[in-house]
Amino acid sequence: MKIVTNVPEELLKSNADEATPGSASLIAYAETTEDVSRFLKEAYENNTKVITIGSHTGLAGATYPQDGEAFLSLELMNQIIELDEETLTLTVEAGVTLNQIREYLSTTPYFYAPDPGAKDATVGGNASTNAGGMRAIKYGVTRDNIRGMEVVLADGQILTVGSKNRKDASGYALKDLFIGAEGTLGVITKLQLEIRPVLAYELSLLIGFDDLNNLAPVIFEILRAPISPVALELLDESSVKHAEVYTQTKMTNQAGRSFLLLTVNSNNQEGLQLELENLEQVIQASGALSTRILNAQEAKAVWHIRDNILNGIYAASTTKMYDPVVPVNRTPELLIKSKELGEQLGVETAFFGHAGDGNLHICILKFDMDDDQWKTVLATYTDKMNQLVASMEGLPSAEHGIGLEKKPYVKYFFDEGYIAVLRKIKLALDPKAILNPDRIFDL
Amino acid sequence: MKIVTNVPEELLKSNADEATPGSASLIAYAETTEDVSRFLKEAYENNTKVITIGSHTGLAGATYPQDGEAFLSLELMNQIIELDEETLTLTVEAGVTLNQIREYLSTTPYFYAPDPGAKDATVGGNASTNAGGMRAIKYGVTRDNIRGMEVVLADGQILTVGSKNRKDASGYALKDLFIGAEGTLGVITKLQLEIRPVLAYELSLLIGFDDLNNLAPVIFEILRAPISPVALELLDESSVKHAEVYTQTKMTNQAGRSFLLLTVNSNNQEGLQLELENLEQVIQASGALSTRILNAQEAKAVWHIRDNILNGIYAASTTKMYDPVVPVNRTPELLIKSKELGEQLGVETAFFGHAGDGNLHICILKFDMDDDQWKTVLATYTDKMNQLVASMEGLPSAEHGIGLEKKPYVKYFFDEGYIAVLRKIKLALDPKAILNPDRIFDL
Repeated sequence: MKIVTNVPEELLKSNADEATPGSASLIAYAETTEDVSRFLKEAYENNTKVITIGSHTGLAGATYPQDGEAFLSLELMNQIIELDEETLTLTVEAGVTLNQIREYLSTTPYFYAPDPGAKDATVGGNASTNAGGMRAIKYGVTRDNIRGMEVVLADGQILTVGSKNRKDASGYALKDLFIGAEGTLGVITKLQLEIRPVLAYELSLLIGFDDLNNLAPVIFEILRAPISPVALELLDESSVKHAEVYTQTKMTNQAGRSFLLLTVNSNNQEGLQLELENLEQVIQASGALSTRILNAQEAKAVWHIRDNILNGIYAASTTKMYDPVVPVNRTPELLIKSKELGEQLGVETAFFGHAGDGNLHICILKFDMDDDQWKTVLATYTDKMNQLVASMEGLPSAEHGIGLEKKPYVKYFFDEGYIAVLRKIKLALDPKAILNPDRIFDL
Repeated sequence: MKIVTNVPEELLKSNADEATPGSASLIAYAETTEDVSRFLKEAYENNTKVITIGSHTGLAGATYPQDGEAFLSLELMNQIIELDEETLTLTVEAGVTLNQIREYLSTTPYFYAPDPGAKDATVGGNASTNAGGMRAIKYGVTRDNIRGMEVVLADGQILTVGSKNRKDASGYALKDLFIGAEGTLGVITKLQLEIRPVLAYELSLLIGFDDLNNLAPVIFEILRAPISPVALELLDESSVKHAEVYTQTKMTNQAGRSFLLLTVNSNNQEGLQLELENLEQVIQASGALSTRILNAQEAKAVWHIRDNILNGIYAASTTKMYDPVVPVNRTPELLIKSKELGEQLGVETAFFGHAGDGNLHICILKFDMDDDQWKTVLATYTDKMNQLVASMEGLPSAEHGIGLEKKPYVKYFFDEGYIAVLRKIKLALDPKAILNPDRIFDL
């Protein structure tokens, strides 16, 4: 294990906001689970605070060092260990990236379902934030696609949680406790991922809207329909505009300013067509302005727009992105009220994301606003938007985590009694609080 | 809240084995969450040990009182609170039974997917053991069908965990921690259950075998096929025999001594037929003796046999039932080796259950064996079967829980370091260990 004190500069910055660079004492590059165990054991004895880092793609500031913490990097633990076709599992080290998995599985008839935006993210990082992505509506989030993990605790103890078994009523759900814990309870070193047979055909339906109020009944009908969409994405007017500029392409010519993009997949091509035709009728009757089953070329073009929304927004302006979730029936309300909030504050907003899960990405764009005003607008928007989401019984994070960035707003969602329970669990597993301390909640 | 000291006699017995009746000091019938909170607060202050009880259908002895514990019954908390069609959730009190839910939803287009055997079980009990059932292969186990819960901690603190939101990256997975904890971490008082639109059509395929070794490739092909079975059940020769005697009906006339019963469901009737016909060809090529797509009458008859296997076994003899799980590719090996173990010990075994999940129910039948011999056989079989499952990287319980009954065998599956972690979590949330103490593991 190599340990160096010159920590790469980009690790000292937060992806979550423009905080001034922090400081870290060193970075240790673990090559094995035993490296991790030894390093933590020593850190535990010396009360050294440790931040675990993968590809540094986190968006909630959970790995932003503030206090001279030590970095433990898992990027060298990047081996694919076993493809087990008989149990449909892929066992990997935690530093393996989504790109690596995709490439590895491309020569097999299988795929790994979770599809978060950052393909260079490590699966260990994905597990730590319970990352979501576009296919969650059909296949669940990262949590639902992990069968087992190896975890190292703060004192160096190596623990196996979960297994290749498909059912488990044998004690506490430790696996689920470490997933989404943002590195505060243990360091994930290996994962057994669930893989699935690739389906042969995909078909997409584009649904246009003028009035966002009409989104609600349409989403409702889609979720109740006897289909299981693999994606149900929202693209609002502003998002489409920025993606069009960025890609130098045009959305397909279809009535509407905002869109829902729905994709279904199956091995039965005619069945898919029939399903979407039936759904089209239901959707037209429930208030959509336009619907269109896309041919292969159109689908590729529209998905290219969807996939480049965030690139487009980032290219257009300094931006702050949020990832709240609300109960799915309140998605349009979240959209409309968050847009109004932007208008009140005089800032452009763009909305896109996972309408079928109640999980919208909200972006506010600075453009040429002066820095002081932006700072004020940012603080006000963040606070009010979180209060809005809380009033709708939503959650501050659907897929990026709380980290340091969202910690000030957690109080709108959870009372002190709830946080006290989190704290008890944290201190039960990490009594000296050396692992990513003060992320998610204060100790 | 009514509190009485004459505890119903059946609650003093274990469903898991023939242990002598235990003792309990009292039973409190909570009518509200506040009742539960007040009762626990007082129990906590007085160091009173508390066993939470629903319908007393548990099969692992988790609610078997040994030590003069107090019972906290939730059977009066049996109200269905809210059907929310827009988020597809049903909110219920923990004492509501599966039968009640089924009846309530029968007048709606929705159903609750988990389908454990005991329909008079409460959903609170189902959540506490993470109950499984036949539809888990498609819809997951109880854990996967609970969005949120209200839980009361040992000291009376009322906690809301999870929510109606479909995604959550906002802190630790507390909901998952309480599910499957067998009442040792808190008392579940309310649940938000996920409900689903009913699908219109079901079609079943019966697959016959002479040689159980041929099961493996067939299960493998089914799990890799582009279908999503709603059930994939095993019926072995002995199970079929006992069910036939009990129901006074005959299995459909089809070659084979053991069978796999596969059911698919969809709103597309022709699609189902086509899917099963394609699958039939694959299955025939991979070693099944016979296959047959059942007509409605045949399907009803075969499912009637399946649904009465356990009744048949119980009617035939004093019986011990196990619920182990192994990685799904090792299901046939578990079956064959467990059968051999029975033969070595001179005891009849019957096998049925959830072949698609690697979760077999293994029964050993006493018949006219004398009591002392039965005691020895039972102890030996239980010990060796658990060692066998552990050697196959399985788990002692797939859906009934550990309770008191399986606690002696936990050592074959988890080392002391793992148990120490469970203990830390238990004591973090219940420092006086008043809730179901010494269930799952020793304190």
